Amino acid sequence: MRASDVETIEAGRLTEARLIEMVFPEQTNHYGTLYGGQALALMDKAAFIAASRYCRRTVVTASSERVDFHVPVRQGQLVELLARVVATGRTSITVEVDMYSEDLLTGERQLGTHGRFVLVAVDVDGRAVPVLPLETAVAVDSPPHDP
Amino acid sequence: MRASDVETIEAGRLTEARLIEMVFPEQTNHYGTLYGGQALALMDKAAFIAASRYCRRTVVTASSERVDFHVPVRQGQLVELLARVVATGRTSITVEVDMYSEDLLTGERQLGTHGRFVLVAVDVDGRAVPVLPLETAVAVDSPPHDP
Amino acid sequence: MRASDVETIEAGRLTEARLIEMVFPEQTNHYGTLYGGQALALMDKAAFIAASRYCRRTVVTASSERVDFHVPVRQGQLVELLARVVATGRTSITVEVDMYSEDLLTGERQLGTHGRFVLVAVDVDGRAVPVLPLETAVAVDSPPHDP
Amino acid sequence: MRASDVETIEAGRLTEARLIEMVFPEQTNHYGTLYGGQALALMDKAAFIAASRYCRRTVVTASSERVDFHVPVRQGQLVELLARVVATGRTSITVEVDMYSEDLLTGERQLGTHGRFVLVAVDVDGRAVPVLPLETAVAVDSPPHDP
Amino acid sequence: MRASDVETIEAGRLTEARLIEMVFPEQTNHYGTLYGGQALALMDKAAFIAASRYCRRTVVTASSERVDFHVPVRQGQLVELLARVVATGRTSITVEVDMYSEDLLTGERQLGTHGRFVLVAVDVDGRAVPVLPLETAVAVDSPPHDP
Amino acid sequence: MRASDVETIEAGRLTEARLIEMVFPEQTNHYGTLYGGQALALMDKAAFIAASRYCRRTVVTASSERVDFHVPVRQGQLVELLARVVATGRTSITVEVDMYSEDLLTGERQLGTHGRFVLVAVDVDGRAVPVLPLETAVAVDSPPHDP
Repeated sequence: MRASDVETIEAGRLTEARLIEMVFPEQTNHYGTLYGGQALALMDKAAFIAASRYCRRTVVTASSERVDFHVPVRQGQLVELLARVVATGRTSITVEVDMYSEDLLTGERQLGTHGRFVLVAVDVDGRAVPVLPLETAVAVDSPPHDP
Repeated sequence: MRASDVETIEAGRLTEARLIEMVFPEQTNHYGTLYGGQALALMDKAAFIAASRYCRRTVVTASSERVDFHVPVRQGQLVELLARVVATGRTSITVEVDMYSEDLLTGERQLGTHGRFVLVAVDVDGRAVPVLPLETAVAVDSPPHDP
Repeated sequence: MRASDVETIEAGRLTEARLIEMVFPEQTNHYGTLYGGQALALMDKAAFIAASRYCRRTVVTASSERVDFHVPVRQGQLVELLARVVATGRTSITVEVDMYSEDLLTGERQLGTHGRFVLVAVDVDGRAVPVLPLETAVAVDSPPHDP
Repeated sequence: MRASDVETIEAGRLTEARLIEMVFPEQTNHYGTLYGGQALALMDKAAFIAASRYCRRTVVTASSERVDFHVPVRQGQLVELLARVVATGRTSITVEVDMYSEDLLTGERQLGTHGRFVLVAVDVDGRAVPVLPLETAVAVDSPPHDP
Repeated sequence: MRASDVETIEAGRLTEARLIEMVFPEQTNHYGTLYGGQALALMDKAAFIAASRYCRRTVVTASSERVDFHVPVRQGQLVELLARVVATGRTSITVEVDMYSEDLLTGERQLGTHGRFVLVAVDVDGRAVPVLPLETAVAVDSPPHDP
Repeated sequence: MRASDVETIEAGRLTEARLIEMVFPEQTNHYGTLYGGQALALMDKAAFIAASRYCRRTVVTASSERVDFHVPVRQGQLVELLARVVATGRTSITVEVDMYSEDLLTGERQLGTHGRFVLVAVDVDGRAVPVLPLETAVAVDSPPHDP
């Protein structure tokens, strides 16, 4: 793919998003542990990108399900988030998000928590609009033309 | 209270925290609507402060319960968060958080969402430590000596 | 108050704002002490919210009076700001702000500094517009319907 | 992988990092176009993560090669960065980074720019330390146990 | 000056600091005007750097004098701050700061406001320590070896 | 210059920009060393301001040349950036940037790195527009009316 080539990845083609984030001091408490709320914000961000890619619409979060935090994440580690569209309703998209922590120096990697978010596709006036049903979508695993 | 007076508000005396936050562009999507994840981060922050004040320990979020987002909050509005300790376990503190949006220019104010977070008090090694039971605490409504 | 109820709090009804802020590393010097300028920014933010709520107009800061910093605030502490409208001119609103520091772990709380800001209500072209005189306003102490 | 399982991904096993970033207003100029310097910072961040993962050491950037910006990236788009270790010296790691822009609403995706960074592995005193030669490393394509 | 040369600029040699800052959306109100508190924070930052350079000690702000805001600064403009040490006490340093706004596109430049800050030099325990009297200092206008 | 005086500094009059930035934790790695990418972002920002001032147009970065990082910069230090327009093409402006580090406490100052950026002047549609040739410009050294 050359720098000037434009491809269009239509709705229904991508069902996931993979994000890496470094953990910075302003996201942690006195002891350098990532705040639960910061983890929720990162998970919702991953869900937002996966759902937007899926429907090519602006999406808003309608609900987040119960989240349990099993493993503390520390400043200087990174978190990797893997978000996947797992279901669709008429106007809603359900996204599951796994959050892994990875220590850059030791290489230790661990599934820290898991969340489930429902997002709704909206038009410019904020009204819900239909989305492509997941069962009719022909998803690809990753963006085309990445080596 | 003069500027040099120090008071100590012990564990069990304060059970709530009230925060106001402005909504800034980097917390909103294309249409200027607050991300759900940013709302969750603000609610967890309020819960963290209420629980820390209650037990005077470092606290970490153990879980957040299902949250529904009923009302979009927009850039330029403010959100006011009211967090209250509503229950305690041996080492855990349950905090309920109401998030109101308020439009500074129109004065419209609305309960936008509600959350429930469980936090655990920990020592410097991250081990859970006991907290004062809520029923034996003698809480005051707001910090002393505010007019 | 249910999530969909909207109330309108008109100009003159609210005369104060109470904010809590955590102190983060990027707001502190080498020794973890809050910069004076960051304290001024937080105090002006509290004054801005109190004055906006009072007049339901965009307001701009016209002046800040002399501020003395008596008590250093440290990273990991929180500051609580209490801003109150104390006087009005034809187009101006004077707000006094007390800034308390509170150590989450020890519970020590202290009035750290005090400021006085004059803000002016402006229209969309930035021209000063009249505000309700404080003596005719019928203020309430806190937003309605908070428990 | 259950939430409490820890795996260790040793040096030489991972040779790439894939990051997604949203473009926010404070990273753009008057017309909403991403600053070149912000793109360089994101590319270096991706290179830093890929090189740290490769050697499981702290790494510092020694040089960035000439970068040409072909395609403007706009606020509200996302950028996806794909960083790969392509060569090693005794203490240095060369990383190539491709930066794609993707418009969430239209689905248009484009290779925007490409960079090449040399990083050096250092010990706690900042002295260069040897890294595993790339030809002897047995890299895997992505972290284990992701579905 | 080659990249490896180190020079030492002792206490008393530099009496000023010149900063340029871009005005970003999160520093402005609904109409894109810089908050007064953000201007105060930038002015204090310039004063902090000028005073630190003067005494080569950590300094803390003891007071800020009355500041009047004459000219609104807008998003997309830049502000240039010029801070100068104008007096010293036994342990205190008085710094005057002029803040200019400059519109990058029109080239319009204006003195927007002026402040005066007193800072105190402190040791690692936060105790005030003596500073070189300004009248005995042999200041230079700008850092050596800049062309 | 009084606060209400406006001067206009036309295209071609200013050819440089001098910025000071503090190094904050979120710009540094585990050991408190400034990321190379953050240095590149600061250098591009200085180049952007110098080029914008020179042509009084919006400018976009077209390329950055090879940059070598000789000297690590640490948290708590400041960096001073000196950007100068050194050449012009029909629509392009070449800016050289020197980045000095300065330790506020020891006074040690060092040229840390050097970069060269090419920026292009664009109109509101992003099309390249001509700039004043450098040899016909009558530059002044610093903004007028600074004492």
